[in-house]
Amino acid sequence: MRRIDLTSAGFLLLEKRETPMHVGGVNLFTLPDGADEQEFLSALRTQLRDCTEFRKPFGDYVVTGKTGLFWEKDEHIDMDYHVRHSALPSPGRYRELFALASRLHTTLLDRTRPLWELHIIEGLQDRQFAVYNKIHHAAIDGVGAMHITQAMCTEEPSAPLGYAPYSQEAYEVYKQQRFGGSKSAPEPNKRDMRNVLEALKQQYDSSMNLATAMRRFGLAFVGRSGNLAVPWHNVPKTSINTRVSGARRFVAQTFAFERVKNVCKSMDATVNDVVLAMCAGALRRYLLSRDELPLHSLKAMAPVSLREEGDLDSSNAIGFITADMATNVYDPEKRLRTIQKSMRAGKDLLKELSPAEAALFMQLTQLPALLTSILGLGSKFPAFSTVVSNVPGPRKPLYWNGARLDGMYPASIVFDGFAMNMTLVSYHDQLDFGIVACRRSMPQIQRIIDHLEDALVELELVAGVSGSGRRAGDTRKTAAAPAKRKRKAPASKTKAKAKPKAKAKTKTTARKTAVKPKLAKK
Amino acid sequence: MRRIDLTSAGFLLLEKRETPMHVGGVNLFTLPDGADEQEFLSALRTQLRDCTEFRKPFGDYVVTGKTGLFWEKDEHIDMDYHVRHSALPSPGRYRELFALASRLHTTLLDRTRPLWELHIIEGLQDRQFAVYNKIHHAAIDGVGAMHITQAMCTEEPSAPLGYAPYSQEAYEVYKQQRFGGSKSAPEPNKRDMRNVLEALKQQYDSSMNLATAMRRFGLAFVGRSGNLAVPWHNVPKTSINTRVSGARRFVAQTFAFERVKNVCKSMDATVNDVVLAMCAGALRRYLLSRDELPLHSLKAMAPVSLREEGDLDSSNAIGFITADMATNVYDPEKRLRTIQKSMRAGKDLLKELSPAEAALFMQLTQLPALLTSILGLGSKFPAFSTVVSNVPGPRKPLYWNGARLDGMYPASIVFDGFAMNMTLVSYHDQLDFGIVACRRSMPQIQRIIDHLEDALVELELVAGVSGSGRRAGDTRKTAAAPAKRKRKAPASKTKAKAKPKAKAKTKTTARKTAVKPKLAKK
Repeated sequence: MRRIDLTSAGFLLLEKRETPMHVGGVNLFTLPDGADEQEFLSALRTQLRDCTEFRKPFGDYVVTGKTGLFWEKDEHIDMDYHVRHSALPSPGRYRELFALASRLHTTLLDRTRPLWELHIIEGLQDRQFAVYNKIHHAAIDGVGAMHITQAMCTEEPSAPLGYAPYSQEAYEVYKQQRFGGSKSAPEPNKRDMRNVLEALKQQYDSSMNLATAMRRFGLAFVGRSGNLAVPWHNVPKTSINTRVSGARRFVAQTFAFERVKNVCKSMDATVNDVVLAMCAGALRRYLLSRDELPLHSLKAMAPVSLREEGDLDSSNAIGFITADMATNVYDPEKRLRTIQKSMRAGKDLLKELSPAEAALFMQLTQLPALLTSILGLGSKFPAFSTVVSNVPGPRKPLYWNGARLDGMYPASIVFDGFAMNMTLVSYHDQLDFGIVACRRSMPQIQRIIDHLEDALVELELVAGVSGSGRRAGDTRKTAAAPAKRKRKAPASKTKAKAKPKAKAKTKTTARKTAVKPKLAKK
Repeated sequence: MRRIDLTSAGFLLLEKRETPMHVGGVNLFTLPDGADEQEFLSALRTQLRDCTEFRKPFGDYVVTGKTGLFWEKDEHIDMDYHVRHSALPSPGRYRELFALASRLHTTLLDRTRPLWELHIIEGLQDRQFAVYNKIHHAAIDGVGAMHITQAMCTEEPSAPLGYAPYSQEAYEVYKQQRFGGSKSAPEPNKRDMRNVLEALKQQYDSSMNLATAMRRFGLAFVGRSGNLAVPWHNVPKTSINTRVSGARRFVAQTFAFERVKNVCKSMDATVNDVVLAMCAGALRRYLLSRDELPLHSLKAMAPVSLREEGDLDSSNAIGFITADMATNVYDPEKRLRTIQKSMRAGKDLLKELSPAEAALFMQLTQLPALLTSILGLGSKFPAFSTVVSNVPGPRKPLYWNGARLDGMYPASIVFDGFAMNMTLVSYHDQLDFGIVACRRSMPQIQRIIDHLEDALVELELVAGVSGSGRRAGDTRKTAAAPAKRKRKAPASKTKAKAKPKAKAKTKTTARKTAVKPKLAKK
């Protein structure tokens, strides 16, 4: 039995049937040359299922003890339940993939089992296949999920994996390769608090840094701090900040990392700043197109990793910075600068703390959000407007038993008060965005993808690097909208239906002409 | 707003994340000759989605009012959410279909929308396709579901349906055709009780019949009645009567109706009696094979319809008879007779009551079950061991826009205390069984299908009609195990994998030799 730390337990306690608390995503792969699809996918299934000793958290389920929640080993793990085989209906475009991923991301995990599912998905075009996975956020955070994906892949195109991807062996081989034998991960229970009230009291009294941070946070909360955005402080209400329904929409898109990097260089900004500015620009466009751009700026909750280098064991080592999205700022450069300032202020606050202190500070300052959520007031008093999470991923192309990883699109959590979550992973030379939204609150989530492109073009113009990173002739198979629109269904599988596509295009054009004049007028 | 009656509301109140309360099933179809699969399925999708005025309960969602639960019209119904398109992975056998249906039956419906989903499923072999549907039991019972399936089909092989299957128009055309214009359905709110306590008091005081029934029920409860089985009375604990997990297994099988009818004729028994005896024989075999056949007999909850002829409007008009399954009786004929007696006693009790009184009686006598369930004691004090529900279906072959309905396999509810549900539909000349079980409590549910066959053969032997109804050369495409085993995967789709099948066969043989001697010994 391992005690579940407070942040992780929060994800279990806050979960409702309408708001599942799992994270995951869609990974796109291309079959190795010459491989038979059925044989290859069947071998992957077998490799995944053929596991006896699991790495954390794949072999454990949640039990309620007298003093809290614990992970306990599942002695009768049913691998056919966890590892599934699914298929897309014809014509097997990304549209069908996203529809399936939306449904799979909607359903709750079974609390009586280890909290994960993995679907191998066949039926895509051009020899691609997909893997949708989900794991409860109580068991893993974004950086932890990246470590797991990296441990099941190799940088060698033709190296087969000699063990089950979720096995203890996979964990140990990866740890050795990545961090060497000498470096040992911190004790898993280091940040577990036996009694949170005790710990809070102790920390609050003894730590000057924490006291300082709390004071500054308190000042920002009542509006006397300059750049530090805090939850609840003038968070406007829009259609994004509603009570959410029990269904999700998932869409994904790849952007060339180079384009964002060029903007960073020219504007002296971090990747995170520019990504937040892309999201802010997209949100501003979305709200303008619906005639509901609020007077006050939207706030984004931006998770930051508090994970120490080499820590593969913590379920959750995350803090949260509330970023001012400056959606009420017309000028894209000014918008970027405002975002940048608020992120710096948030980071400065965290920088002064030790990781343990930061974790505690996060728990303290997020307590009110926890309370409003439990009371069902999340939609009445939104703590922030949306989540923008930037997860650093692998720097080199990866392969799973020889199948090239074409893209990794994260799918995260929405909740009452924030009906949309934008998470992205930097993988090799691309930025892979995965956007999850409440199906009812945000029925036209696909538009956000187009708005992200528009916002990036706008930033490129401001930075004077217009279009430099775009590769019009790019033939790689990622979930990029232009590639998707161009691609035809193979004649063997279906009679190509040109009509819906043509219709979609017309719609896009109509919408763009409807939005752009508004932006120009202002 | 329509008030939700007490029985229906019970299904909403008792629902937990591990125990969804929806019913539904898998309907198998064969594409019309010459039809293109993609075009045909796409037309079906369009026909289903193209609906503005819905028949009950497809356009309504649940709202909580001050005095109870109500149905309210959903003004923004999202048909793409409700009508879905899914696919089976290769090789597209019934095994893959049941695996998908198991998963789809596992997940909760979204309470913020009308409580139904329908999946059109492609990827089956031999030009078949499937439809999995689910509707909350608060919105529909078995007989109601049959009316809906019948309303969306025709007896004419080539007649296209001129309207959306779930439209008010479909309802009215069907009502006219089936019950004529003169016969009007009873008022929908006839059995709704404005205040259940008020109603109970009134009925209890004024109705002699109800009082008599209650007295007899009470006597049976304390063990002084002969043939009347009641909930809790010596219900043994087996692996079927556990707390259930949040995952399901679904399997299905067709039996020739003629076989059962021949046994009925020869043994002077009803179809229901013989079906219960089949289930009892299967359960006895299953428990023997696991060395856990209990001393006391298992009890089956057998729903009976209290629906009046022509009533298309009630969500739930069902009562429950608790049948003694006589699983502790070695002799198959004696077992049938014991079941028959307990069913007669239960029916006699109900016969003396008016439909309204019967509904009230059911609510009264099921109240203790409701209470133990709410208290989470369902697995500790099981009210019955399993559910065996026999739903009369259409007598003639049906077609949906020209696609022949090959089989209709129901999928119903399990709960803490009964981890398995056996529901069957009589359709044309076949009996279609759909069995749902908790995936953890009953991992080998497929065996029940084989045991049902064994139990029917046993009854045929006793009745002296051995095998008369079996058609060895039957080529119809139903989910019959022998047909399934014989069928080969088309070479174009997959390299036939002979190994798993051979393994399964060996297993079956081993199991049978392991069980049968035990039966013989006794």
